[in-house]
Amino acid sequence: MSTQRPLIALTKRASPAHLQHRPRTWQPHRTFATPVTPGTVVAPPVTQNNTSSKGPTAMVFMNMGGPASVDEVSGFLSRLFADADLIPLGPLQNYLGPLISRRRTPKIKKQYSDIGGGSPIRKWSEYQAEEMCKILDKTNPETAPHKPYVAFRYANPLTEEMYGRLLEDGFGKGRGGRAVAFTQYPQYSCSTTGSSLNELWKWRQRLESPKRNENSSAAEAEGSINWSVIDRWPTHSGLIDAFAQNITAALETYPAEVRDSVVLVYSAHSLPMSVVNRGDPYPAEVAATVWAVQQKLGFKNAYRLSWQSQVGPSAWLGAQTSDTVNNFVKKGQKDLVLIPIAFTSDHIETLFEIDQEVIHEANELGAEGRVRRAESLNGSPTFINALASIASAHLSNNEVCSRQMGLRCPGCKNERCLASKKFFMGQGVQDNAALTL
Amino acid sequence: MSTQRPLIALTKRASPAHLQHRPRTWQPHRTFATPVTPGTVVAPPVTQNNTSSKGPTAMVFMNMGGPASVDEVSGFLSRLFADADLIPLGPLQNYLGPLISRRRTPKIKKQYSDIGGGSPIRKWSEYQAEEMCKILDKTNPETAPHKPYVAFRYANPLTEEMYGRLLEDGFGKGRGGRAVAFTQYPQYSCSTTGSSLNELWKWRQRLESPKRNENSSAAEAEGSINWSVIDRWPTHSGLIDAFAQNITAALETYPAEVRDSVVLVYSAHSLPMSVVNRGDPYPAEVAATVWAVQQKLGFKNAYRLSWQSQVGPSAWLGAQTSDTVNNFVKKGQKDLVLIPIAFTSDHIETLFEIDQEVIHEANELGAEGRVRRAESLNGSPTFINALASIASAHLSNNEVCSRQMGLRCPGCKNERCLASKKFFMGQGVQDNAALTL
Repeated sequence: MSTQRPLIALTKRASPAHLQHRPRTWQPHRTFATPVTPGTVVAPPVTQNNTSSKGPTAMVFMNMGGPASVDEVSGFLSRLFADADLIPLGPLQNYLGPLISRRRTPKIKKQYSDIGGGSPIRKWSEYQAEEMCKILDKTNPETAPHKPYVAFRYANPLTEEMYGRLLEDGFGKGRGGRAVAFTQYPQYSCSTTGSSLNELWKWRQRLESPKRNENSSAAEAEGSINWSVIDRWPTHSGLIDAFAQNITAALETYPAEVRDSVVLVYSAHSLPMSVVNRGDPYPAEVAATVWAVQQKLGFKNAYRLSWQSQVGPSAWLGAQTSDTVNNFVKKGQKDLVLIPIAFTSDHIETLFEIDQEVIHEANELGAEGRVRRAESLNGSPTFINALASIASAHLSNNEVCSRQMGLRCPGCKNERCLASKKFFMGQGVQDNAALTL
Repeated sequence: MSTQRPLIALTKRASPAHLQHRPRTWQPHRTFATPVTPGTVVAPPVTQNNTSSKGPTAMVFMNMGGPASVDEVSGFLSRLFADADLIPLGPLQNYLGPLISRRRTPKIKKQYSDIGGGSPIRKWSEYQAEEMCKILDKTNPETAPHKPYVAFRYANPLTEEMYGRLLEDGFGKGRGGRAVAFTQYPQYSCSTTGSSLNELWKWRQRLESPKRNENSSAAEAEGSINWSVIDRWPTHSGLIDAFAQNITAALETYPAEVRDSVVLVYSAHSLPMSVVNRGDPYPAEVAATVWAVQQKLGFKNAYRLSWQSQVGPSAWLGAQTSDTVNNFVKKGQKDLVLIPIAFTSDHIETLFEIDQEVIHEANELGAEGRVRRAESLNGSPTFINALASIASAHLSNNEVCSRQMGLRCPGCKNERCLASKKFFMGQGVQDNAALTL
């Protein structure tokens, strides 16, 4: 992990008046790669623990999210295509975004229908966050209790819903409290983690800033939530172990005599070249993850990193995953394991795009079922322990965020990035000298 | 390093008839970052050492090279623009290549004149190879003596010249002997290491293959040189240490109070997007180097990876180094250290493009001399020890090449790549099952 900056002046109060039991869906602890049936149990309340000096602590998992049902597809797509951080459509964004999203809705509804009626990403995110918090309560008693939250960028629960819950639960609004924004994208992109942080900053300004909320008192501004950010963790050893375990399991489905000649195709969501050329750090961090996994696996198998899910007519970073697979199969290299390397939970890009489109096309070309996919990390205990290890170090070190987060892309002209970075970098320090904007 | 494949059936003979003293330029052992004055001494002969089982061993450093004098610029550029592996100009390569190279010659001559009349890359390469061989003679006596050679792709000594020397020195042509093609590009690209290997394979076919050389006897084919390849070493710990030392030295030129807020700009030669989109492994391997160096430095400084030296009108991978520097300076981030991360010795891209163009432009924008460059690795003893460590492991493990080298790019249509990879992968194995073509 990056060297991070000290978080100071954390407030310790949280009002018990807002602490109420609220039912949450819950997933039992499972070994990875097994299906999970949701149950419903009562989550522990966010009690102000007088014996602990810094708790409670809100642990907020940020991710893009996905529609949990087919009915949510339309809203999901309209938010997605409205986000210039993710899909830059230029000055016509407000016109083109709704147009593209409306046109794509029927097709994407069909895709969600084909994978069982919705994305499992909420289920997995809530499960991962809850399991991680249980571990943190043991490893980091000084910041306990740790309360899990999920904030999605384009699907429920949206950032504003999560923020409302935080306020309901006794954080902020003059009562202070600490919250950690924990990106669930291991590699940082302005399109993903950056967009989520800009959104979080926006709602923080709307719901807590005295400038935006004229009814707030100065005391409320002073007692607003203290945020820190876990902004990237592309080569954390636990993450790498979790990927390596799932890849090894996939390799074991091949006969021993061909196992070493299976080619590993690591696949990450692509970026428009306009974003790459602006200096987005994502391609290099994805490559760092891939290299670390290959090192862990001893470079026993040849591999390539490819990029999936391009949309629209502009240039995106390649090689494309679908082309990569098709070209290998056409050359006679049929034994391929696809590894989703930039998302940790299953979503439409794994369950539909890879499992149904890419693999189907490979079979049409004669791959004979020999193109397979490594499981997503989902409920992997190794992965959940990694999340806890990353969060534990962040909490113990009183970090605000990585130094790298303060450096805007050289070609960035987005004033929201500037304001959002200033806000998050400034959460723990008086001196912003190291902030590069 | 990658898991590599066993080299078997090495021949042990080399004819003493061809072993003659030949003067070579020689560089005394220096601490890094000090200028070196060439002297001339007599190199040790390639004697067949009867007490050693596998020596002598030719250690061939492959690199792109550069004109050692202004007079060599024209030939250098014409070879460069003729190489479709490096600069793909399509079906008009034979027409456009000479055109572009003739048009660029006067400008590039001026650049070489401005850096002192020629590239120092030959001087450094010969020095590094010789120093490395001295170390290998001690660490790997079973393959001693190790004899240094340099083969440049576009400048003297060209591949054919090096191959001629090998034959003169008693290798091949029925006498066998072992040679290691050691790429001096730490990260593999089809444009660089791939091109050098294709060229080496071409000359091996012309000078040693019985099919191409009808006068050769079967015995000569059997006794041809046994080649193995060190094809990539992007995160070797010694390489990373050497980069980190030079970056730390550059940071120490800044006042202590601003040192941590200096931004590190790692700069690598760019690639055309057509090569990136074909699946070239280079961008991901460069990113792996950068991440490893940042880890070694404890992520104390924010950083970006950028790409330099784009030529022509087609799309290349960005962000561009010059834009990156200019944009940071314009935003007020004047303290920048540029780090050449994909070349190990100084060349026109460091001495002219970075030192004279990029830094000059930054100063014009008000950088006040605060944009600087980390020294290239050149004569760094840490670097030379790293080369020896990489070569020593390769020799001890009887490796042919990395498994990764056998995997052609998914979009590759170059039949020379296929033939060249088949040749090098097949040097030590009967069974080519693991070869992915």
